[in-house]
Amino acid sequence: MSAVSPLAVPPDALFGVGNLPYGVFSTAADPRRRLGVAYGDHVLDAGAAARATGAPGGLAGLLGAPSLNPLLAAGRPTWRRARAALTEWLTAEQHRAAVEPCLVPLADTTSHLPFEVADYVDFYASEHHAANLGRIFRPGAEPLTPNWKHLPIGYHGRAGTIVVSGTPVVRPCGQRKAPGDPAPVHGPSGRLDIEAEVGFVVGTPSPLGSRVALTDADDHVFGVCLVNDWSARDLQAWEYVPLGPFLGKSFATSVSPWVVPLDALAYARTQPPARDTAPLPYLDDRAARPPYGLDITLEVRLDGHLIARPPFAAMYWTYAQMLAHLTVNGASLRTGDLYASGTVSGPAPDSRGALIELTWNGEQPLALPDGTRRTFLEDGDEVVISATAPGPDGTRIGLGAVAGRIEPAR
Amino acid sequence: MSAVSPLAVPPDALFGVGNLPYGVFSTAADPRRRLGVAYGDHVLDAGAAARATGAPGGLAGLLGAPSLNPLLAAGRPTWRRARAALTEWLTAEQHRAAVEPCLVPLADTTSHLPFEVADYVDFYASEHHAANLGRIFRPGAEPLTPNWKHLPIGYHGRAGTIVVSGTPVVRPCGQRKAPGDPAPVHGPSGRLDIEAEVGFVVGTPSPLGSRVALTDADDHVFGVCLVNDWSARDLQAWEYVPLGPFLGKSFATSVSPWVVPLDALAYARTQPPARDTAPLPYLDDRAARPPYGLDITLEVRLDGHLIARPPFAAMYWTYAQMLAHLTVNGASLRTGDLYASGTVSGPAPDSRGALIELTWNGEQPLALPDGTRRTFLEDGDEVVISATAPGPDGTRIGLGAVAGRIEPAR
Repeated sequence: MSAVSPLAVPPDALFGVGNLPYGVFSTAADPRRRLGVAYGDHVLDAGAAARATGAPGGLAGLLGAPSLNPLLAAGRPTWRRARAALTEWLTAEQHRAAVEPCLVPLADTTSHLPFEVADYVDFYASEHHAANLGRIFRPGAEPLTPNWKHLPIGYHGRAGTIVVSGTPVVRPCGQRKAPGDPAPVHGPSGRLDIEAEVGFVVGTPSPLGSRVALTDADDHVFGVCLVNDWSARDLQAWEYVPLGPFLGKSFATSVSPWVVPLDALAYARTQPPARDTAPLPYLDDRAARPPYGLDITLEVRLDGHLIARPPFAAMYWTYAQMLAHLTVNGASLRTGDLYASGTVSGPAPDSRGALIELTWNGEQPLALPDGTRRTFLEDGDEVVISATAPGPDGTRIGLGAVAGRIEPAR
Repeated sequence: MSAVSPLAVPPDALFGVGNLPYGVFSTAADPRRRLGVAYGDHVLDAGAAARATGAPGGLAGLLGAPSLNPLLAAGRPTWRRARAALTEWLTAEQHRAAVEPCLVPLADTTSHLPFEVADYVDFYASEHHAANLGRIFRPGAEPLTPNWKHLPIGYHGRAGTIVVSGTPVVRPCGQRKAPGDPAPVHGPSGRLDIEAEVGFVVGTPSPLGSRVALTDADDHVFGVCLVNDWSARDLQAWEYVPLGPFLGKSFATSVSPWVVPLDALAYARTQPPARDTAPLPYLDDRAARPPYGLDITLEVRLDGHLIARPPFAAMYWTYAQMLAHLTVNGASLRTGDLYASGTVSGPAPDSRGALIELTWNGEQPLALPDGTRRTFLEDGDEVVISATAPGPDGTRIGLGAVAGRIEPAR
């Protein structure tokens, strides 16, 4: 294989053969949206590769779709077959001539939302994040609410404003009222924040009135993406009692363009942190093998400067517990449901995934290399969240980045 | 016209020519899902009628769709053209021979969800409801939270568990913890409640980053349905701090099978109640003509017994204010978005739209004619919410009913 072949991807590449994340892309030359698989510095046109290699019609149809949803709906046995086929196409010499023309330089592609989002749920699964917010907003009181260690707290977000990485984020307007003000005012948010999160994409649906057992989570969860749950803290503070966040979150939620299959995270499995409160049986994962913790390390960059390295392995609640809780009341799952972890924050000050924690509610501004300081986001700021996780043979795999730049309020 | 013609609908029929609500139906003889229009005791197969009358291809395509969404997306001028065409087909003698065969007895039809729900938002727009809950849960304190009169409080619900009237509702399980208990327990909800609401169906979308002005609401809102926002009060009480309702609501939300076009509610327009707090400019509807209040009277029946007559005219926030607020942060609208009013409660004790208010948190059980009493719902209970509103010439139009029966927990 020649050194210039796009198939010659080194074993330590973040998008190597141990990863094979799915996305939807187009190019200037061919604006049709189509499924792609990130491989090295290229994107494999999955449908074209299926046709070129003579894949069976069913698989070719799923990989030739304009979104990931048909493959998501097909279920885990098909996900495994597709992954095995992609691995073979990208590595077996016999397919080289057919597959090479199906690889497009990543730099020449435009990413689109990789799947059609059904419902979006956001959890609050980091003990460090929840406790930090408790300490900031309720000083002197117990940092965690009484329910926090008994259930993964979550709420529904706006599926229609989920956007792919790179989509500009317009600073939202809304009502805010400082505690001493006589009345609320309307205007652009002055406390625009990020939340660095990991998202889980549901493939296999479940019927209304039934629940998904913790140990069946992997039959339903297709894969993982990164999420930036942009948050207007001033809008949120004024609106959220008693029914929770609404406009403080619903203006935009960004997701990474690549969905990493759960199978690619086999080497990232880890025990979740020790818990001091016994979970109710439907949330009890203590006997689960492999465990549902995932050793994903996030990195948050503000205008190119690394400001945090949040460790997903430190999350109190796992994705399997979140899914078991989400469905314990009989709520059905649909293909394309997305649930996110909530802000990933670790115990160390530089492992916190939101500015409100990193700057301690604005009291401790961040110093950037250009000499400026930040409490919350300014117009023009760009935030990039990336992540890696252990892969095969001591390598690491990448989750692809979720990026967004703040545009001024309209 | 002969007296037995299905076209001979009396002027005072709830589904008369002044109404013409849309739904999706099938029959045993023809299981295809298709658009229907309720008319008297019949359903007009809208696509068949369009073809039989030689309607233009565009209109025939929209009315021949298996869901309301294509018509919703077409915008208000097309909604008006469709309504005018339907009126002509149902009333002009020249169309009688073509249209009569397109009418199916309502009793022979099965209703389906009339539109594909995009995002679902639930508001909290009744001052009486919000104040009653405040008095029940925070006795001695101000009944309303400080933000209540400044903005229509809302939150996102689960779109994927919205079901059409008649769908059984399985009693949900989940965690609950009474204030004196040492730890939560898991099991079936013991405080299963209803919320009688009015829902608004969005047709015309709006782009991300822009807002919909209050006075543009009617360009986006296609019509109105009835909503029963089933609520497990014990699950909700334990989970909802700090991020709002989640599993206490997400197990099922029922909607009526018929969407009444906003144009059919022209005679129901009324001034909203006097407000003692000046709204911020983006919510200020004081100059709006016609006003955005709607004089819809709901009726709630439990096992056939009328237990409440909630007046929608008493709602503090209007549908136009809810929409202006929902989008003020730049959140986009999608065709099929549904937003509901929250429980409709009036000032009188028998005008409250939830059992928690009607029984004052279970302290004052309802006596039913069969000699039994109810605090919250029992297995086998059936709840039917219906509504009427002023129509042309002193008549009333009907909103169709939303019904649901409770099945035991699984």
